[in-house]
Amino acid sequence: MSEENVIYVGTKEVMNYVLAVTTQFNEGSEEVLLKARGRAINRAVDTAEIVRNRFLTDLDILDITTGTEEFEREEGGTSNVSTITIKLGKSD
Amino acid sequence: MSEENVIYVGTKEVMNYVLAVTTQFNEGSEEVLLKARGRAINRAVDTAEIVRNRFLTDLDILDITTGTEEFEREEGGTSNVSTITIKLGKSD
Repeated sequence: MSEENVIYVGTKEVMNYVLAVTTQFNEGSEEVLLKARGRAINRAVDTAEIVRNRFLTDLDILDITTGTEEFEREEGGTSNVSTITIKLGKSD
Repeated sequence: MSEENVIYVGTKEVMNYVLAVTTQFNEGSEEVLLKARGRAINRAVDTAEIVRNRFLTDLDILDITTGTEEFEREEGGTSNVSTITIKLGKSD
């Protein structure tokens, strides 16, 4: 994609992210990336499903990838957290 | 896949599912499907990431799909829940 349209899904209520995605597309974006880590992963999936089922039904999930990130724990040492990236766009 | 090798990820500790997947492959399965709904979705992603990073490093995530299921609430009416299916297998 020419510009990075990335929405980071965190701990807010899911409809905040649904609105953010819908706004991005309504402002002319061709694709939007939803990114989340750890427990927010299911909220990213919820966001994608709600957007394409209820708001922008011509959208599709073009790609989903997962990964692992290492982070430093407050008490020392490192832990791993899973990540997800969901690419939403118009299906041809 | 010729036989259905489906592991349903629920509320148990993630290592239970990691062990289940690893066992399936060690017993000769070519592909395994991880399925989860709602809050268990991030645990399914954790399972896939841990298996391929730490236990069976020749495995890859071949496909990830999401969906929406309707269920009946105890107090009446219906709600929607997001689902995920992660296909693990050997990359060619």
